[in-house]
Amino acid sequence: MSRVVCFGELLLRMSAPGRELLLQSAQLAVHAGGAEANVGVSLAHLGHAVSVVSTVPCNPLGDFALGELRRHGVDTTAVRRSDGRMGLYFLTTGAVQRASEVVYDRADSAFANSSAGDYDWDALLAGADWLHLSGVSPALNPAMAQATLAAARAACARGVKVSFDGNFRPSLWARWQGDAPGILRELFACADLVFADYRDIGVVLGGEFEQADVRERVDAAAAQAFAAFPRLQWMACTQRTPHSVDNHALGAMLIGRDGTRAMAPTREMLGIVDRIGGGDAFAAGILHGMMRGFAPDAIVRFGLAAGCLKHSIPGDFNPVSEADIMALTGEERFDVRR
Amino acid sequence: MSRVVCFGELLLRMSAPGRELLLQSAQLAVHAGGAEANVGVSLAHLGHAVSVVSTVPCNPLGDFALGELRRHGVDTTAVRRSDGRMGLYFLTTGAVQRASEVVYDRADSAFANSSAGDYDWDALLAGADWLHLSGVSPALNPAMAQATLAAARAACARGVKVSFDGNFRPSLWARWQGDAPGILRELFACADLVFADYRDIGVVLGGEFEQADVRERVDAAAAQAFAAFPRLQWMACTQRTPHSVDNHALGAMLIGRDGTRAMAPTREMLGIVDRIGGGDAFAAGILHGMMRGFAPDAIVRFGLAAGCLKHSIPGDFNPVSEADIMALTGEERFDVRR
Amino acid sequence: MSRVVCFGELLLRMSAPGRELLLQSAQLAVHAGGAEANVGVSLAHLGHAVSVVSTVPCNPLGDFALGELRRHGVDTTAVRRSDGRMGLYFLTTGAVQRASEVVYDRADSAFANSSAGDYDWDALLAGADWLHLSGVSPALNPAMAQATLAAARAACARGVKVSFDGNFRPSLWARWQGDAPGILRELFACADLVFADYRDIGVVLGGEFEQADVRERVDAAAAQAFAAFPRLQWMACTQRTPHSVDNHALGAMLIGRDGTRAMAPTREMLGIVDRIGGGDAFAAGILHGMMRGFAPDAIVRFGLAAGCLKHSIPGDFNPVSEADIMALTGEERFDVRR
Amino acid sequence: MSRVVCFGELLLRMSAPGRELLLQSAQLAVHAGGAEANVGVSLAHLGHAVSVVSTVPCNPLGDFALGELRRHGVDTTAVRRSDGRMGLYFLTTGAVQRASEVVYDRADSAFANSSAGDYDWDALLAGADWLHLSGVSPALNPAMAQATLAAARAACARGVKVSFDGNFRPSLWARWQGDAPGILRELFACADLVFADYRDIGVVLGGEFEQADVRERVDAAAAQAFAAFPRLQWMACTQRTPHSVDNHALGAMLIGRDGTRAMAPTREMLGIVDRIGGGDAFAAGILHGMMRGFAPDAIVRFGLAAGCLKHSIPGDFNPVSEADIMALTGEERFDVRR
Amino acid sequence: MSRVVCFGELLLRMSAPGRELLLQSAQLAVHAGGAEANVGVSLAHLGHAVSVVSTVPCNPLGDFALGELRRHGVDTTAVRRSDGRMGLYFLTTGAVQRASEVVYDRADSAFANSSAGDYDWDALLAGADWLHLSGVSPALNPAMAQATLAAARAACARGVKVSFDGNFRPSLWARWQGDAPGILRELFACADLVFADYRDIGVVLGGEFEQADVRERVDAAAAQAFAAFPRLQWMACTQRTPHSVDNHALGAMLIGRDGTRAMAPTREMLGIVDRIGGGDAFAAGILHGMMRGFAPDAIVRFGLAAGCLKHSIPGDFNPVSEADIMALTGEERFDVRR
Amino acid sequence: MSRVVCFGELLLRMSAPGRELLLQSAQLAVHAGGAEANVGVSLAHLGHAVSVVSTVPCNPLGDFALGELRRHGVDTTAVRRSDGRMGLYFLTTGAVQRASEVVYDRADSAFANSSAGDYDWDALLAGADWLHLSGVSPALNPAMAQATLAAARAACARGVKVSFDGNFRPSLWARWQGDAPGILRELFACADLVFADYRDIGVVLGGEFEQADVRERVDAAAAQAFAAFPRLQWMACTQRTPHSVDNHALGAMLIGRDGTRAMAPTREMLGIVDRIGGGDAFAAGILHGMMRGFAPDAIVRFGLAAGCLKHSIPGDFNPVSEADIMALTGEERFDVRR
Repeated sequence: MSRVVCFGELLLRMSAPGRELLLQSAQLAVHAGGAEANVGVSLAHLGHAVSVVSTVPCNPLGDFALGELRRHGVDTTAVRRSDGRMGLYFLTTGAVQRASEVVYDRADSAFANSSAGDYDWDALLAGADWLHLSGVSPALNPAMAQATLAAARAACARGVKVSFDGNFRPSLWARWQGDAPGILRELFACADLVFADYRDIGVVLGGEFEQADVRERVDAAAAQAFAAFPRLQWMACTQRTPHSVDNHALGAMLIGRDGTRAMAPTREMLGIVDRIGGGDAFAAGILHGMMRGFAPDAIVRFGLAAGCLKHSIPGDFNPVSEADIMALTGEERFDVRR
Repeated sequence: MSRVVCFGELLLRMSAPGRELLLQSAQLAVHAGGAEANVGVSLAHLGHAVSVVSTVPCNPLGDFALGELRRHGVDTTAVRRSDGRMGLYFLTTGAVQRASEVVYDRADSAFANSSAGDYDWDALLAGADWLHLSGVSPALNPAMAQATLAAARAACARGVKVSFDGNFRPSLWARWQGDAPGILRELFACADLVFADYRDIGVVLGGEFEQADVRERVDAAAAQAFAAFPRLQWMACTQRTPHSVDNHALGAMLIGRDGTRAMAPTREMLGIVDRIGGGDAFAAGILHGMMRGFAPDAIVRFGLAAGCLKHSIPGDFNPVSEADIMALTGEERFDVRR
Repeated sequence: MSRVVCFGELLLRMSAPGRELLLQSAQLAVHAGGAEANVGVSLAHLGHAVSVVSTVPCNPLGDFALGELRRHGVDTTAVRRSDGRMGLYFLTTGAVQRASEVVYDRADSAFANSSAGDYDWDALLAGADWLHLSGVSPALNPAMAQATLAAARAACARGVKVSFDGNFRPSLWARWQGDAPGILRELFACADLVFADYRDIGVVLGGEFEQADVRERVDAAAAQAFAAFPRLQWMACTQRTPHSVDNHALGAMLIGRDGTRAMAPTREMLGIVDRIGGGDAFAAGILHGMMRGFAPDAIVRFGLAAGCLKHSIPGDFNPVSEADIMALTGEERFDVRR
Repeated sequence: MSRVVCFGELLLRMSAPGRELLLQSAQLAVHAGGAEANVGVSLAHLGHAVSVVSTVPCNPLGDFALGELRRHGVDTTAVRRSDGRMGLYFLTTGAVQRASEVVYDRADSAFANSSAGDYDWDALLAGADWLHLSGVSPALNPAMAQATLAAARAACARGVKVSFDGNFRPSLWARWQGDAPGILRELFACADLVFADYRDIGVVLGGEFEQADVRERVDAAAAQAFAAFPRLQWMACTQRTPHSVDNHALGAMLIGRDGTRAMAPTREMLGIVDRIGGGDAFAAGILHGMMRGFAPDAIVRFGLAAGCLKHSIPGDFNPVSEADIMALTGEERFDVRR
Repeated sequence: MSRVVCFGELLLRMSAPGRELLLQSAQLAVHAGGAEANVGVSLAHLGHAVSVVSTVPCNPLGDFALGELRRHGVDTTAVRRSDGRMGLYFLTTGAVQRASEVVYDRADSAFANSSAGDYDWDALLAGADWLHLSGVSPALNPAMAQATLAAARAACARGVKVSFDGNFRPSLWARWQGDAPGILRELFACADLVFADYRDIGVVLGGEFEQADVRERVDAAAAQAFAAFPRLQWMACTQRTPHSVDNHALGAMLIGRDGTRAMAPTREMLGIVDRIGGGDAFAAGILHGMMRGFAPDAIVRFGLAAGCLKHSIPGDFNPVSEADIMALTGEERFDVRR
Repeated sequence: MSRVVCFGELLLRMSAPGRELLLQSAQLAVHAGGAEANVGVSLAHLGHAVSVVSTVPCNPLGDFALGELRRHGVDTTAVRRSDGRMGLYFLTTGAVQRASEVVYDRADSAFANSSAGDYDWDALLAGADWLHLSGVSPALNPAMAQATLAAARAACARGVKVSFDGNFRPSLWARWQGDAPGILRELFACADLVFADYRDIGVVLGGEFEQADVRERVDAAAAQAFAAFPRLQWMACTQRTPHSVDNHALGAMLIGRDGTRAMAPTREMLGIVDRIGGGDAFAAGILHGMMRGFAPDAIVRFGLAAGCLKHSIPGDFNPVSEADIMALTGEERFDVRR
């Protein structure tokens, strides 16, 4: 349907079996991931032509990451291979009241060591409808901040729509004392669609939102964002309420510059299997709804159902079809399908 | 205690590990199953002399299915071996709001290709107290419909009681445009005990039940069934309310031609491990209660506890003892037993 | 910080994978455990110098048990090696409404066959601040009852504080018709701190507690205990309310001879991973709080958080740090930590 | 480098863990395979643009097969999706003196039920340099025999070179009493390159070869083949000598119409990991050597090294690079590479 | 074909995965076994009606052992259930030059604690053709020595043939200083067929055999045995030559009272998977050959092939058919069978 | 017995299951290792008091590495914890003719980023008899070269004997163009014992050894080494001849300054399980023999047997006792030990 380019780091997740502590037994399960690639895999399963732009090392870890993307139908021919190492993260999956924990081992990865000049956006964006970026890449280091900005500006210049997922990670910015607000403002300024809630907008625009109700805070933040960024058309976000590590409620909102305000009824997610990638699955659902021309209400319900479905699937990816998601936006049917 | 013959197809279930999507990782766990064999395994663990009548191929898959039945104490000497293939089904176990899904690969199995003439019911029913059948077998194809009817009629003729589990599967009947109501009516007419709810009776007798309360619908359906089938003495069914994929409530009713109406209090099943075979475990519990001469209230509580217990056990079988089930019909004790 | 000696039997737990019935598939996971060693492992992770005193056989099973203790930072140089066998227990982890079950195979273990003369408490307690014992050891046989008493008396004589976890197991005492109340009274008389609720006190002192509220029963029992055992300073216990096999509520109380009465707010534990060792983790948390000089409220909250955390971790041990537990005594934060 | 189209059935291999008998434990490992796809995967790893033409069902088993091909860089856009079932085979890996055994469950697969009209060779062969076929497809049934012939003829007509691997399977032909010699003769007549030894030529041309030395028999057979099939340029084959199930010697020959006769020195393969797909890996190696323009000696040494390497890799595929294979054609270096 | 009763202890083998040291990782694979049961399982797969007589505890470990026997077609209705524990053994599988090691944990098992009076041989031997015993049972303790003698004498008295496998285990006899020669002589005196080599005969009859060639030693021992035990008709044994832990040569001899002397050509077993139970598989093969009336040469070749096949199969059992073994007595065919 | 300090990097090995290619399935087994730590673990199992000096990060990967050392009886209190990452290596285990491959991911590890000033050798060497170093540490970077030299010099100064394993890794030195010969000469100059063959001596002293026989080359190299390094007393090395990836022959030599020249007969290692750490196990065996005062012949036979045993054990460590190794220096006994 649409042609989408996703730019960002590919990571390998290494996690303990089941609910064990990391290396409690000496086994690791490996999954490929990365915020932008997760969105790309979802969109490929939803029928779009997706290409990932990134850099991975010339070794079996890089091969694995690309093989996993190809398996899910993503075009990997635009991924650079280089010397260096693969970015890793180690995940301890939580349970009961013990939260899941991520230990990153991504410094000096082949991607983090690449720079703006390594990516020829004229070629890479040819024929693309959307470019999807996230706030993780510019947080890595000054060169990656410039590379991400270059991608966003190139898309703007060519009329390719930009989707930007805030994904604010203070710990990454802190490592190099990067000017997060300044750089993120430039990225927001290029975006047609942002995934952000009031906290992200607060970081970017410097304010605080103290309305009693979370949805009012989102509304106020959206109003500020539309005022600050004339190009921005849509802002989408989820509201998550964890009851315990494995039981969360999830709602979602989609707000338009034109005053549109769509909300999806909160879903209760009991017995969560894997929470990682839930936000990326939501983003992909919203993007799909927009690319398919759904009404705003349908878009946000589709996005939330996509995000909810992800919580039932091991790994970072959400390899489900439009029909799988649609089935969840209707009547809840939880018994076996034969 | 009693001698029970179960006639039906043996299947191998192939399922992904844990809550993975099917073939997300390239491993399959294999379990033997089949609606009637599941009942047989339960009854063998409850102390009855159980024989399964079926057909499986002369290959390691057939050997495995029979080995599993024998392991659980079921007599397999009456199972035919033939050329052909083993019926398979592939199970994706759901989670959160993603329902479990079954993909059948059972067409042209050795069992489906057998016919009435392959089973010598004079010999097979010698000494039997009960014959257990289900609505899956006649739905396979015309020959199997005739074979199932032949079994039921042979039991009637010999004074062997017939237990029939409706198990209505529209998709199977649709493949050969079989006259489900007509054939099922003949089978119901042979039965002393049926496992059916108002939807099954609606299919068989053609009506609809629109009472507000589900239990009223069951009562009305039972009344019609007793009127239509003079041989029928008992009708039993469960009421399932899924709150999410892994959390269900389950209640049960047992209604007798003599006006008996027994209900078991609803049980909340939290953190379901494996829902497949829950209905078969319930059926076996009811049959056991009848064969042991329990009072109706005790029968339905025993049946519901048996069905509930199954939801905590991986695989299609419910390999639990009478004492295990009895323990559950009393006070709920959920902490570790030492 | 403190030096703690734990005396008791090391056991190997052998359990089925996931929620399978024992030997449903022919695999067993092995974990080292034992009530007193579980406390020791927790305390070592909390920064104390812990030594385990026990006896294990000279074979790979004994080697494994000691290796596991060392891995967790426990000093094993005081463990005797001898001929004989390792104590085992087989665990079937329950689910839904099927309770977990333990089958012991610990008779005639190298530890159970040791006797008081095998342990030189002068040397073993040198420099120790605390000795931790439980009611399991004296229940094994007459020689072990004497050996446990000898340990407790030696600690008293040397001014080493004694922590005693009641852990009353009627089935063990019944095997040799041991005088549980008489022996336990002697052990309680040596203790500075006991882990016991009103049922344990009832066994030891012969009374019954029939107050309507469980906490009143505990208060009354504590009052009797302080009256009967002049050396005793503290009594701690949990209140557990299982909603289903995998969902429990857990509260805790700490009562002091000086009238202190501290309670920790009940925690809801949803989706329990492994309940074994929960009581030992609580005991270690209380001991740590005391050794660190926390206020009573902080001690009991810390103990409860430690016990709660254990329910999320496979195996008998609770290998978590003070910071991990502290994080849980504050605001509940259930989403991923990056 | 070159563009290659492979036409044939995709199968899922289901095998027991390690050296267990099939279903000795209730686990199956799944690998995608199929003689022609195996060649395609090898060629993709060797740098060619490979497309597989086949039919797989619209279910998760078909999805898995295609996902595996994509992971290895094979283009799957030319694979038809249809109703029906996936072809399966069950593998018991042998050991010591117990030979490996394959049980097929491929009847009535989606591929076997397709026919010549389902494949538009004008489109499918556009831009192709080679078409690779094997003797398995025409052996399935009359329609598939016609479909395979149609593919071969279409390639001839368009000047696309044809590579044909004899892969003679008497048991498949016997099921429908197909005229193997007649049909295979037509396929050989279209081929530029055949993988066949004297037994295959004997089947196709009707003679027997009784020279004392196996290599003389191959020479004689090649002479007859070149005489009978004017289009044929090359015949390649291996000579396998099993010493035990896991220890084989493997040699190879390549004979040209122009009198070329190249032989690779026999390699001793000790401790074979997985013998399935060894012939396909050899075929891919030969094809690669031809497409790259190697000298005949280099081609056959490359092919043999590729085949040998496959025996060290689990699964049907041989996912190795040109450099990996080249390393093996030089000095044997068996110690760890760092 | 024939009815065979096997009397002896059932054991559970617990072994590390692959070639790991015991408990190097905390997993154990469980297999049922026991010298006499191993023979029984083989004979059941070869088509005989086999019943095992033993005692196992009333717990899930005993259930597993019986379930495994039933799965393989052995009748377990004659197995007593009692209190007590299951006999265990822990196996570390060797490799290269590190020999496999067994650690027994079988003392005080339910079987070892049973006695002659627990077995009603009138009923147990009704209709039997053969009774199979081994030298392990009498070595356990005085009561088991008497129980084994009682079984042997009962068979003699009833005309049931006795097969006795020497299986001399000095370490077991040493534990209670049992009179191994005296008791074994009584057992040999009851036997029609013994599995024994010159070392066993040396133990029983007190001599030493110092001929240069092992086969001469066996001949001399057989001559002495036939002289000492008038009832004895046949003596069979293997000759094993280990080249390394995983590569052995195995030959076999069968010597008859009538002067028959049959030898099977030595087989080279490369890459042994599991050596445990090899002798039992040989014994079953010999017994089958006798019961089927094979010629002596065919019997010993069949026995050796059966024993050889066992070395390729994980676990203690040899679940292979007559056809599987026959295939190995002919031409060696080591490549895949399709 | 003796007190030994080992200084070097701890690494985590991540390897594919069985003989799979790396990430062929998405699982990794994790083992702790590191050349010097491997020696330390061996020596701890042989009864010595071993302390490892190193630096690992404050995260669960560092915790795992230390826990594994403690499990094997190594004192880890001298290991520094710091920020940064754990050194990793990814191992693809080879088979047949496909060599094993190591991909390092150790750059910028916490250890590599430490420096001489981080290690207080006065304290660390107090009471030590030996310091063991290897050529890996100085190859990492200039700071580590200085840190290793500082350790060696500190030992010399304090009269602690130095054992140095050459372990020459050209690829590491090449990354920073380090002066390998110069630095290694300084380290050799401090050593009492070196593990080195003629190639290592060639690197260090600049010559080439072209004698026809490998043992003559070793003799010549030893002569040069003793001449160049007055402190050096012993040089030991193995001679490895791989027949295939899993079948090697291994011999060993020990040469003394005093003219001693001891050789161990070559051992054939068939069916190697894990070759990594074989050299470290040999080094530990030699060191143990010296510390125990064995005769030179006994030392080299013990060292070779230790190295040989390692090839049968998964992982980098060789956790075997003196008795295990002694058993191998005598008569070869390859059958099961009971």
